[in-house]
Amino acid sequence: MKTLKIPEATIIRLSVYSRFLAQAERRGIITISSGEIAGGVGVSSAQVRKDLAYFGEFGTRGVGYNVAELYHHIMKILGLTTEWSVVIVGAGKLGSALAMYGGFRDRGFRIRAIFDNDPAKIGEKLEDLEIQTTENLESVLAKSPAEIGVITVPADVAQEVSDKLVAAGIKAILNFAPQVLSVPEDIVFRNVDLSVNLEILTFNLGLPRR
Amino acid sequence: MKTLKIPEATIIRLSVYSRFLAQAERRGIITISSGEIAGGVGVSSAQVRKDLAYFGEFGTRGVGYNVAELYHHIMKILGLTTEWSVVIVGAGKLGSALAMYGGFRDRGFRIRAIFDNDPAKIGEKLEDLEIQTTENLESVLAKSPAEIGVITVPADVAQEVSDKLVAAGIKAILNFAPQVLSVPEDIVFRNVDLSVNLEILTFNLGLPRR
Repeated sequence: MKTLKIPEATIIRLSVYSRFLAQAERRGIITISSGEIAGGVGVSSAQVRKDLAYFGEFGTRGVGYNVAELYHHIMKILGLTTEWSVVIVGAGKLGSALAMYGGFRDRGFRIRAIFDNDPAKIGEKLEDLEIQTTENLESVLAKSPAEIGVITVPADVAQEVSDKLVAAGIKAILNFAPQVLSVPEDIVFRNVDLSVNLEILTFNLGLPRR
Repeated sequence: MKTLKIPEATIIRLSVYSRFLAQAERRGIITISSGEIAGGVGVSSAQVRKDLAYFGEFGTRGVGYNVAELYHHIMKILGLTTEWSVVIVGAGKLGSALAMYGGFRDRGFRIRAIFDNDPAKIGEKLEDLEIQTTENLESVLAKSPAEIGVITVPADVAQEVSDKLVAAGIKAILNFAPQVLSVPEDIVFRNVDLSVNLEILTFNLGLPRR
């Protein structure tokens, strides 16, 4: 089925559409047009139709989309009709912030464990989560497997942590460490650089104002 | 000059190219081809050429790009040949993590102040930064203006904080609060939802493996 190469920008927009549709559903809206979705999220309606067209036929010409159906379909495309277990390695400020980030829970991501190698942090609580020693990573994951590992350690130990996650059976890695990591081909991998968000702002600050 | 609508994905890739070029320059490389840039960052060389073509003519056919020149040019496009002053509102885990995020400093973003309305946090230090009361936001920005405001407060107070930043002369806002905000037309605005990064992973986990 999914054999076309889907642009990452499309995936990001699907995520935005799904949040908008969830809101619409809560407001009791039954059907919606691509123009209404477009207006609600700030893209063109041609873009909405193009993004959805990657995944087959949706909606009825002249009637629009059934909100609940389209929401469910997009969530399925994004892999979000199931819960995902996530572990975080690195309980610094960023790791701790992510462990308690409500936005993850809302989308079905469950933080199952957080690890650190600083003895001063082991045993500390982040809400319900107790910070565990990184030495236990493999045994914890053997008992309760997780699909996703998030790396928030300093750059110089990120590769080592990534190797440990892979050895422990993690299938996907989100890396916040400013370090190029090498992972096996079958691991889904993504680097996050938070500066990029500021750079999109400064690029736009350089454009002629609207 | 910049009148074409540039896709955001292009801006994100320019940011990635610039980091790669900085590395190449440190390794003493003088000229580089679009294929070498492409190989280094994992896109096609046609993509590299297309992204750069938005901004004019670069490089010499058959010779490639001068690394230092292209780096400087991309940094200029991204608005990164100047320093930017940033203030953060919300000194929770995420705000504190961002205040100390080394990646910002490396790209010319200077965190000038961080604010919170929790009396228990006021006066606390995050490296060299002292957490200040949000009440001082306007007077602090009047004395030392900043271009960029980062919002890391809970959703229910995010609009109020955004209004304060705008009133205090901020030109661009990066919002981490899970809340739709309304800002004047002339403010550059960007929402960051950290969950999207996990959703791109789970989308890819659903694809047939390579």
